[in-house]
Amino acid sequence: MNPIDRLAELFKEFPGIGPRQARRFVYFLLLKNRNYTDEISRLIPELKNHVRTCSSCFTYFSKEKTNIEMCDICSNAKRDASKLMIVGRDTDRDAFEKSGTYNGMYFVLGGTLPILEEDVQKFIRVKELTERVLLLKDSLGEIVIALNANPDGDNTTSFLKKHLDGIKSENMRISLLGRGLSTGSELEYADKDTLANAFENRR
Amino acid sequence: MNPIDRLAELFKEFPGIGPRQARRFVYFLLLKNRNYTDEISRLIPELKNHVRTCSSCFTYFSKEKTNIEMCDICSNAKRDASKLMIVGRDTDRDAFEKSGTYNGMYFVLGGTLPILEEDVQKFIRVKELTERVLLLKDSLGEIVIALNANPDGDNTTSFLKKHLDGIKSENMRISLLGRGLSTGSELEYADKDTLANAFENRR
Amino acid sequence: MNPIDRLAELFKEFPGIGPRQARRFVYFLLLKNRNYTDEISRLIPELKNHVRTCSSCFTYFSKEKTNIEMCDICSNAKRDASKLMIVGRDTDRDAFEKSGTYNGMYFVLGGTLPILEEDVQKFIRVKELTERVLLLKDSLGEIVIALNANPDGDNTTSFLKKHLDGIKSENMRISLLGRGLSTGSELEYADKDTLANAFENRR
Amino acid sequence: MNPIDRLAELFKEFPGIGPRQARRFVYFLLLKNRNYTDEISRLIPELKNHVRTCSSCFTYFSKEKTNIEMCDICSNAKRDASKLMIVGRDTDRDAFEKSGTYNGMYFVLGGTLPILEEDVQKFIRVKELTERVLLLKDSLGEIVIALNANPDGDNTTSFLKKHLDGIKSENMRISLLGRGLSTGSELEYADKDTLANAFENRR
Repeated sequence: MNPIDRLAELFKEFPGIGPRQARRFVYFLLLKNRNYTDEISRLIPELKNHVRTCSSCFTYFSKEKTNIEMCDICSNAKRDASKLMIVGRDTDRDAFEKSGTYNGMYFVLGGTLPILEEDVQKFIRVKELTERVLLLKDSLGEIVIALNANPDGDNTTSFLKKHLDGIKSENMRISLLGRGLSTGSELEYADKDTLANAFENRR
Repeated sequence: MNPIDRLAELFKEFPGIGPRQARRFVYFLLLKNRNYTDEISRLIPELKNHVRTCSSCFTYFSKEKTNIEMCDICSNAKRDASKLMIVGRDTDRDAFEKSGTYNGMYFVLGGTLPILEEDVQKFIRVKELTERVLLLKDSLGEIVIALNANPDGDNTTSFLKKHLDGIKSENMRISLLGRGLSTGSELEYADKDTLANAFENRR
Repeated sequence: MNPIDRLAELFKEFPGIGPRQARRFVYFLLLKNRNYTDEISRLIPELKNHVRTCSSCFTYFSKEKTNIEMCDICSNAKRDASKLMIVGRDTDRDAFEKSGTYNGMYFVLGGTLPILEEDVQKFIRVKELTERVLLLKDSLGEIVIALNANPDGDNTTSFLKKHLDGIKSENMRISLLGRGLSTGSELEYADKDTLANAFENRR
Repeated sequence: MNPIDRLAELFKEFPGIGPRQARRFVYFLLLKNRNYTDEISRLIPELKNHVRTCSSCFTYFSKEKTNIEMCDICSNAKRDASKLMIVGRDTDRDAFEKSGTYNGMYFVLGGTLPILEEDVQKFIRVKELTERVLLLKDSLGEIVIALNANPDGDNTTSFLKKHLDGIKSENMRISLLGRGLSTGSELEYADKDTLANAFENRR
């Protein structure tokens, strides 16, 4: 197959990209100058070489020096090591960092657990999480399960809650993100659960 | 003006209705049978005659017997009279009733207070609310301010919070609806405030 | 049932109106002053009394004087009586009048013919159309079939085309609205038929 | 800058891609296996090497053999060489080919001419078009200007119409795509121009 059609096929696998936009990506690249296309094709393989997952939270980070094992946050002494927030993906961690509301540590599950799925480890880093929690046992005061408020997220949350209750130390608290009205919600259009949560979690 | 154009003009004032849909309403009525159009035109004036606002919560209700002064909820002995929920409109009360999560009493403000607006009473029933609260003083354990999570709602909430703190009895609690992730929220797309609330209000 | 719930039920039948908006219509009417609600309820029954369908084109119009039989357009000597445009509904006629591109006469079918439907007269005024065409035979130079470019519209168009070819006089032309790119269409996103029409109907 | 952030920046330039989706592309690539990432980074530079623009219609095509100068269509003897369709981009040509309604030749302008823009050649291949038309002069029976039905497209069309009228041979026809109702259009919602075109271009 010629490079145009083949690249269009590969771009079609990009998240949220259909066949038409995939094709436009190819034509876009054809119009860009060499510097641009060369840099992209040079960086894509570099990703795997120069990027590693943090040995403690499993977020991706680029290793400038080969000896670094941990990401900026895990290696930052100023962060509150008594809190661990479990997120699904790096993008969720990024969102929390941007919000500037959390100063603790993170753990990236790498996904969510589909409902009725048995093979947990295939979807989330439960083994690595367990090791991390057992390792921190003494120092850790709270684990915040911070997953999306959708079925897969809720399923993963209830699995983790049970799992962590089994391994946590006595003085360790397991918490979940608050549910209720999100910015802009109007009562008239809010669903049953959101209203129930907003009422139960009233301040 | 002929009835077609005039009715189209009147329908244009209906909430969320533009000139084109207003016109389609008129043609729709022209196609409906007499029973339908007669019933509508009979019921519209009846609304004001047979509907009254509850003397205690100010929701609309239809008075089957002329002596009734209060709506089904306010006259229902089974409801928890120690809780009062302040909502903006009847539709918000309807939404909470449908959710089946609240068994207390209501008070309908009749609107929200625009930001920087001085003339409060023109927008919300603050005088009536004050009387209601002073009246219930002893029996009332909690007031839940349940307004939309938007600027006007927030402005009204902070006004009411201050106002009620001034008149409430000691053992009376003023609470606000919980903020956080609403059903379906994904962390990656949640705004800064929602993430902050979800974390601060974690359970 | 009380007037609030009953009116909400009736408004639910309005075109494009769901249960929630129907309810808001009721609350909206409760807040409006008497003049408004009285005028609406007075005009709705008047519609049928004071409005009639034009004896020649079947559009609705209000009869100021009881002796008038025809709408403004049909009774307007300045219109080009050699052209007859067949539209589905009054709103389609209104749209063409607003566009100011057509100066002939109209005929309102009163609907469209669903695919595979046998009982034609139940859906469109084919009997009345036939009479009209036979009546005008000599004076009529062109009939424009102007229906929506969707399956029902196309089905109705092909039915009318065949039907009119059978009754038209020799020097009478049957034409259909032009197909092609509508304002704003982009070739990349246009469907197969639109591109085919745009090419075949090129100027 | 590290490869993650830098690649996210580069993806942000892709058509229709915002910062957030750009970042998700990077995380997506990190999760894909080597075969995938290696193939993409190998093909991107190949695009420019193995792809050339057809010497006669200027579409992109991949040169399997170095001696080929023309794309499949331009080198296809079965195509009708008496028709030349001017399109804005390769994607527009693709759309017409998929529709299967046109069997002539193409010319890709490479863009559209913004309104009030003086420097024509900077936006569209007018020089190359002129050469092509003069070259084909005798054999060419019709030029179809096939551009988007939006302001830039219309501006480019009227410029080309004037320009081609100046250089075309007598028996050469310049045609534009038909305007009217596109598939799915409803008269009630059609804009003034579309109705006018649909009527003027009636069949």
